[in-house]
Amino acid sequence: MSVQNPIFIPGPTNIPEVLRKAVDMPTIDHRSSLFGQILRPAIDGAKKVFKTTDGQLFIFPSTGTGGWEIAITNVLSPGDKVLATCNGMFSQRWIDMCRRHQLDVTMIQQAWGDGISAERVEKILAADKHHRISVVLATHNETATGVKSDIAALRRSLNATKHPALLFVDGVSSIGSMDFRMDEWGVDVAVSGSQKGFMLPPGLAIVGFSARALEATENARLPRTFFDIRDMAKSNALNGFPYTPPVGLLNGLKLSTEMLLEEGLDNVFARHHRIAEGVRAAISAWGMQLCALRPELYSDTVSAICVPDGFDANKIVARALNAYGVAFGTGIGAVAGKVFRIGHLGSLTEAMALSGIATAEMTMVDLGLPITLGAGTAAAQQHFRLSIESTQRKAA
Amino acid sequence: MSVQNPIFIPGPTNIPEVLRKAVDMPTIDHRSSLFGQILRPAIDGAKKVFKTTDGQLFIFPSTGTGGWEIAITNVLSPGDKVLATCNGMFSQRWIDMCRRHQLDVTMIQQAWGDGISAERVEKILAADKHHRISVVLATHNETATGVKSDIAALRRSLNATKHPALLFVDGVSSIGSMDFRMDEWGVDVAVSGSQKGFMLPPGLAIVGFSARALEATENARLPRTFFDIRDMAKSNALNGFPYTPPVGLLNGLKLSTEMLLEEGLDNVFARHHRIAEGVRAAISAWGMQLCALRPELYSDTVSAICVPDGFDANKIVARALNAYGVAFGTGIGAVAGKVFRIGHLGSLTEAMALSGIATAEMTMVDLGLPITLGAGTAAAQQHFRLSIESTQRKAA
Amino acid sequence: MSVQNPIFIPGPTNIPEVLRKAVDMPTIDHRSSLFGQILRPAIDGAKKVFKTTDGQLFIFPSTGTGGWEIAITNVLSPGDKVLATCNGMFSQRWIDMCRRHQLDVTMIQQAWGDGISAERVEKILAADKHHRISVVLATHNETATGVKSDIAALRRSLNATKHPALLFVDGVSSIGSMDFRMDEWGVDVAVSGSQKGFMLPPGLAIVGFSARALEATENARLPRTFFDIRDMAKSNALNGFPYTPPVGLLNGLKLSTEMLLEEGLDNVFARHHRIAEGVRAAISAWGMQLCALRPELYSDTVSAICVPDGFDANKIVARALNAYGVAFGTGIGAVAGKVFRIGHLGSLTEAMALSGIATAEMTMVDLGLPITLGAGTAAAQQHFRLSIESTQRKAA
Amino acid sequence: MSVQNPIFIPGPTNIPEVLRKAVDMPTIDHRSSLFGQILRPAIDGAKKVFKTTDGQLFIFPSTGTGGWEIAITNVLSPGDKVLATCNGMFSQRWIDMCRRHQLDVTMIQQAWGDGISAERVEKILAADKHHRISVVLATHNETATGVKSDIAALRRSLNATKHPALLFVDGVSSIGSMDFRMDEWGVDVAVSGSQKGFMLPPGLAIVGFSARALEATENARLPRTFFDIRDMAKSNALNGFPYTPPVGLLNGLKLSTEMLLEEGLDNVFARHHRIAEGVRAAISAWGMQLCALRPELYSDTVSAICVPDGFDANKIVARALNAYGVAFGTGIGAVAGKVFRIGHLGSLTEAMALSGIATAEMTMVDLGLPITLGAGTAAAQQHFRLSIESTQRKAA
Repeated sequence: MSVQNPIFIPGPTNIPEVLRKAVDMPTIDHRSSLFGQILRPAIDGAKKVFKTTDGQLFIFPSTGTGGWEIAITNVLSPGDKVLATCNGMFSQRWIDMCRRHQLDVTMIQQAWGDGISAERVEKILAADKHHRISVVLATHNETATGVKSDIAALRRSLNATKHPALLFVDGVSSIGSMDFRMDEWGVDVAVSGSQKGFMLPPGLAIVGFSARALEATENARLPRTFFDIRDMAKSNALNGFPYTPPVGLLNGLKLSTEMLLEEGLDNVFARHHRIAEGVRAAISAWGMQLCALRPELYSDTVSAICVPDGFDANKIVARALNAYGVAFGTGIGAVAGKVFRIGHLGSLTEAMALSGIATAEMTMVDLGLPITLGAGTAAAQQHFRLSIESTQRKAA
Repeated sequence: MSVQNPIFIPGPTNIPEVLRKAVDMPTIDHRSSLFGQILRPAIDGAKKVFKTTDGQLFIFPSTGTGGWEIAITNVLSPGDKVLATCNGMFSQRWIDMCRRHQLDVTMIQQAWGDGISAERVEKILAADKHHRISVVLATHNETATGVKSDIAALRRSLNATKHPALLFVDGVSSIGSMDFRMDEWGVDVAVSGSQKGFMLPPGLAIVGFSARALEATENARLPRTFFDIRDMAKSNALNGFPYTPPVGLLNGLKLSTEMLLEEGLDNVFARHHRIAEGVRAAISAWGMQLCALRPELYSDTVSAICVPDGFDANKIVARALNAYGVAFGTGIGAVAGKVFRIGHLGSLTEAMALSGIATAEMTMVDLGLPITLGAGTAAAQQHFRLSIESTQRKAA
Repeated sequence: MSVQNPIFIPGPTNIPEVLRKAVDMPTIDHRSSLFGQILRPAIDGAKKVFKTTDGQLFIFPSTGTGGWEIAITNVLSPGDKVLATCNGMFSQRWIDMCRRHQLDVTMIQQAWGDGISAERVEKILAADKHHRISVVLATHNETATGVKSDIAALRRSLNATKHPALLFVDGVSSIGSMDFRMDEWGVDVAVSGSQKGFMLPPGLAIVGFSARALEATENARLPRTFFDIRDMAKSNALNGFPYTPPVGLLNGLKLSTEMLLEEGLDNVFARHHRIAEGVRAAISAWGMQLCALRPELYSDTVSAICVPDGFDANKIVARALNAYGVAFGTGIGAVAGKVFRIGHLGSLTEAMALSGIATAEMTMVDLGLPITLGAGTAAAQQHFRLSIESTQRKAA
Repeated sequence: MSVQNPIFIPGPTNIPEVLRKAVDMPTIDHRSSLFGQILRPAIDGAKKVFKTTDGQLFIFPSTGTGGWEIAITNVLSPGDKVLATCNGMFSQRWIDMCRRHQLDVTMIQQAWGDGISAERVEKILAADKHHRISVVLATHNETATGVKSDIAALRRSLNATKHPALLFVDGVSSIGSMDFRMDEWGVDVAVSGSQKGFMLPPGLAIVGFSARALEATENARLPRTFFDIRDMAKSNALNGFPYTPPVGLLNGLKLSTEMLLEEGLDNVFARHHRIAEGVRAAISAWGMQLCALRPELYSDTVSAICVPDGFDANKIVARALNAYGVAFGTGIGAVAGKVFRIGHLGSLTEAMALSGIATAEMTMVDLGLPITLGAGTAAAQQHFRLSIESTQRKAA
């Protein structure tokens, strides 16, 4: 693997130069007023990216997985009922975590490759006359399968049934890259991390809580201290932190959110969509299928690509890395060996995307897959050419 | 505050140039074999710094506070009895965490400034005929008061009473700077972080578990997922991580432990002692007292300095920062306003230490304290001069 | 232009991560012994890359252009006769410099795209019975046209005629990337810079002098002080510098030469050839011609590509930069507007090369050139696939 | 030597964090418009620091020594008469360079430690009825002796005699740190470098030319190409460079000048004076003398300190480096062994200055000099305390 090549794992992403420099700070006194000048805009910037003005946002030295734990331990108590859809590795892991924390999970199993079914959720909520279900869990973007679910539809289901359950959303691989609207969608806890749409090294869990979720924290009896948002809220109010803060990453987040907001979130999303469409054009030209079952499920941050039956997808990832020094994502969980993944999120250019597509192409030909060299690349090139024209026409 | 000045808070420390560069890495594929080449030596190096060969070491994207939670949630169950000494802010916070996690804490209150009394611990253990106490908690170095406790003595007390309680030690501000011997002292869980003796940015909890502590994890019923060392152990065995690892910091830890071991831990400790003695010589020349009650309690990583009655110690910290751009530590908890702290750990030179001492001196004179300009500096200079002579004589 | 994209100008090159970190140094005392620990291995390493043991190597805070001036001012006197071939912008500029320094230049004009004619040189030398010609100037690799000349043949011509003229070679865009043998080829002054094969930022002229060239310095009457190698030699002998040295770049050169030598110069050259052949396969698939007239002239560090008559080549460079953020080289001098250039030197991978090729392809299609999208990319992919196979077979 | 210690050589200086990051750039296409966005503000910023609006400013990849050569070769012809004062190593080297370039130098020898005598200059100019002297050379700040000369007085002498000679000033170790007024003082060529007041790594010669000096370039017959400002002017006018530009350093200069101008030049000068006065207070408390003969000659960027007769000043520099890892400047030239130097320019704080003073103090006591530990430090502390009070009072 050459660190000069761009990376195509579905996060952590390629880190922009300026963000690397923002993170790489000398030690400052985190109890001085300097710290507030970093923490405050980092929080405020992240709120804007989460699209919440009503909610409160917390940043912990942790990861997205920690973010899930923050979500459940601050709101729930042992035995609480949770309704969750499993349609991939990350939704499944969150469900496992709930169970390990003694929550009572009703699981809706969807095919890996399918999205959350708002209908199935709605049916179960409607049947829950006594409102025993406290929380609905949803993974906005299943990184394992490259599947985006419709959170707005889920909100409509909650509303339709007038069910008071809270809505927790894993937006780890969507927020900052794909449209996400915490307030508008009525998300009660939204979870993200530093290393995807925010283009930073891993090390931060970024979590938004709605007013209702905050209220619920007072009665939550799952033990937590490190992840307790009450301590965090108290310290943050004084521009402080309940323990040693990861100052460099926070400084990175401050700049990252400035960059995203300056570009304009809609432009950021459109850019991700454009690059993703190029990758999908290549996949289609290769005669391959996405793991995601239908176009409306296609993720703009990661594509999981099905290989022919009997072919081990991991070989592609291994060959690309060993022969060409380029990293793609393996399939994980139920689709291990059946898909390989191209991450296309963060600060990615056409030129970088094309180097990934062309390398995947070489690799598959090396391994005897029936691919025409250049075919996928040409399809992506054509998409990039035409879409950049239209981008420039629009801008003009 | 000028980022060009060295920093004198008791951690995070001044980060050596090479460690900043080691942490500031481009993204690599953490599922490739490259990751094991970072993780494995980081773990092995940290084990040597902890002085454990029998134990297992885990690194989490968290902080020392997270390390405490790792210690208790992996070993204990609600209602378990813990015996702990409170002699400062950090021992107190750990006790609070235990209580919030529904543990039953027997607290031995010592004066802030005093150390752990092995005698008092021994008496309580001896009285606990039915061995109801599961764990003894100890803070090796109380960062709030600059007090080092004698962990070897604590082990002797446990042994003398043949009490089977496990021994958990907070070594956050001692390990890597002061003598610490996990195996020899029979420490069952040892907790540290990246940002003190390891001279890195914050973001890692580094935790050692003895065989007995590991065994206990199977029956521990405190819920945990993010902090579960069983998941971590399983992933680490395959050179992996249960979630996105903080690769840059791990790479920093790899190099940091190499640096410490190459210098030789005894030399590292001697260096810290030498610098600390210089700071204490200055304090003494100022006619001031340490918060630590007796010389054997003096910490080699941080000095908490008592100010005259009625004088607000925070003024010193504020003035030094605002007028001279130099950061010292405020007093916290029970000694807030009564002490200020000089951190003297990590990669500190005589020249750096003297700049801190001279600045503290100016600041105190500015504030009307009866200090002679240059007096403390001269005392430290004399100590540095004579001790460096003897270092050089020894080396020759 | 996105700084995340690789760059395809014919130097400065993409700088490897480790070299950026080596250059980015805090200030050290350049009069202390630390400096010698940087300067000495930088010089020794560069000598190995120049393949000289007999010669002496000097490093100046300057550029390749400064290197030319070092070559002529240290050896020659006003009115001295120089024989030089002009076959591109850089050979021409060196000739101009000679004239501005009052040297008497006999210029052999070759077509831009052609190489140095050893035959023509030999003929002139043979006719110079009185050995009035003091120096033969040669540009090993004409960066403007992507033409490599045969320096060994030139040496044979000098030998055949028994002409005592010194041989000065501009190896700015060849040394460290293509085979260069200072001693074996009898090169008397060899000139390079930091920003090409050495993969560093610009700022260093690196110049080798043979024993004969050194001898000649004593009688050289062109005035020079900053560029005087006698002062440099005197200072270097004491591990010093005649003025403030560019310590960071020297530290980078130390590491850069270590990297090149560890990889093995032959492997470095083979790698450049492999990448260059991929680029040329693409050019051929586009149905385009190189500016270089014959295969034996093809440069492995830069390709100058002829565009159809009447088409302005600068448009390609502008469009690639503006639409896709990728930098290629424009044509300069006599071929301005007629060629565009792809630099393929330094630390370049297949994935990076493919991103450049694919981007050039998109750009040319955008501009209406009769290119099939993917065609050049596929040709390069095929070359990279097959050649990597053979590389791996050889290594196995 | 520890790279964590501040450095006290009289340049290169301690490089501020943000400037290191500005210099450490990935490669950009220096023929794209991006380059102009760096070059233009770098030039404009430097002009403001030079205080010239009438003049033109040029930046070369070189050093201050190269700057001298730029000055003379662009304006003068062999045999031209130059009047120069020698009062230290750097003025002497410039004179040597003139002679090596076949200029006819009339040298006024002043004692090392003395400044330029405007009276002696005036007398000679007055006697030069036929205006044979083309240029008067002056070193604004003699780095070897810590002596500042009065350039305004020199201009008055030129004016008084109505002599048309041009005035060339070496401002390498003054510009950006001490008051310098190119236009107001009628300086025709002003020379500086990147590594002193501009706080950057070495590698740039920064040179200002007045309209009269520019005019003179047309008739100057000293050969130059690399250093020819006509080529530079032509290229700069198109936002280009005549050869590969040192982009990172130029980007650093852009930011450095922004920093200096934002702080305000008067504040920058006052800060340097304040720190210098602190150092001088320490020297005085040590009972030692400056090499500079009179207070009006005292340099605010470097102090050369005389040691007792028979004592080798180099021992101080060696001991400080070897025992304490702190770098001071040795005496050079006529005062080698007789003085050691403390550089106090660039981005230096009180805390940093005190660490240097305290280390020098320890070192001198180690070596048996009759110094009281803490005495110099206390004197500097007192000065810093009082002067910061007055600074804050003024600001309030």
